[in-house]
Amino acid sequence: MVYTLHSAWRATAPYRVRIGLALKGVDYDYVPVDLIKGQQREPAYKAVNPQGLTPALDIGELVLIQSLAILEWLEETRPEPPLLPKDPLDRQIVRTMALIIACDIHPLNNTRVGRYLNKELGVEQAAWMAWIHRWIADGFDALEPMVAEHGRGFAFGETPTLADCCLVPQVYSARRYEVDISAYPAIVAAADRAAALPAFAAAHPDRQPDAVL
Amino acid sequence: MVYTLHSAWRATAPYRVRIGLALKGVDYDYVPVDLIKGQQREPAYKAVNPQGLTPALDIGELVLIQSLAILEWLEETRPEPPLLPKDPLDRQIVRTMALIIACDIHPLNNTRVGRYLNKELGVEQAAWMAWIHRWIADGFDALEPMVAEHGRGFAFGETPTLADCCLVPQVYSARRYEVDISAYPAIVAAADRAAALPAFAAAHPDRQPDAVL
Repeated sequence: MVYTLHSAWRATAPYRVRIGLALKGVDYDYVPVDLIKGQQREPAYKAVNPQGLTPALDIGELVLIQSLAILEWLEETRPEPPLLPKDPLDRQIVRTMALIIACDIHPLNNTRVGRYLNKELGVEQAAWMAWIHRWIADGFDALEPMVAEHGRGFAFGETPTLADCCLVPQVYSARRYEVDISAYPAIVAAADRAAALPAFAAAHPDRQPDAVL
Repeated sequence: MVYTLHSAWRATAPYRVRIGLALKGVDYDYVPVDLIKGQQREPAYKAVNPQGLTPALDIGELVLIQSLAILEWLEETRPEPPLLPKDPLDRQIVRTMALIIACDIHPLNNTRVGRYLNKELGVEQAAWMAWIHRWIADGFDALEPMVAEHGRGFAFGETPTLADCCLVPQVYSARRYEVDISAYPAIVAAADRAAALPAFAAAHPDRQPDAVL
């Protein structure tokens, strides 16, 4: 059976999974979820993922959610090419990089939080942008010295890892929101190099069927 | 060398790691970080963890951060007792449970975000409490059917996993903020059963040297 990925073109969590699937050479059908229209909150999508977030990867026997759990599952079921190094301490560092993005940047800046800030707390566009910038800067401040220390072309080492699966979408998001990322040369260099690889390029938002260009 | 855990008694991320260390039988020295006084933002702590968040686990050759990355490292370096099931799909589910808490509940409700909402956006105490309740409810709404389906005494299966390491602190936090958790009987039953085990009990906030009771 061909897998089905429920995705939204610009959202960073499904972007991570698209990269992982492409790196592992896994084919899938693409079903768009329109986050602007609120399709993720409608019953049809809640039947796929009750949490109402993207991505969801339907593999037939189960619908997988949570991008990092999907990537770990891909790594365990398809070990080549490896997305984690072999040494446990190196793996800890790669996962730390991924989690700084997946826990400490992205959840604060996603659609549902923006909606709550606006509708429930009356936060206007400029303050929302400042909020987004703040959490990206905090996370990138922590990541930059790690990438500078451990990167050898990629975020960690000489090949793409889970860290790059998270970093490339987060750098895309930072540019989308016009964050000045010139203070993060190691991050930008690693992300831009990874983004140029065919697997990363195929996963880019602009290449998705629901892209609005 | 004995490890050193930089921890704060009521914070849920170090609480997760205390549980993991106790389950794996790893001794450590405890260094408190006073989040109320803002010690996590001071140079002395930033020298330990530049991200300014707890926990940080100093193992001598490296300081490990990000609670889930620390737990995965513990699992890989000390396989017994296992905190992840053997089957890749089961592991995916356990990690999904952990990530719903670690990505979609906790980062929205932690100290630095509360501080930003108050100082930068003028959000008062009642609105902050509503915010906290909202993200706990959203996450628990997703978790409850998963625990009901997969739990056999614990969040997943018959023994503690990474999911319980995250769930017990999150239920503690929900009670601290007076969230009505009666709508989540599977979560409450699993968390209360786990919390009664010696390893979980030893990790409880009230048992830490910096507890204010």
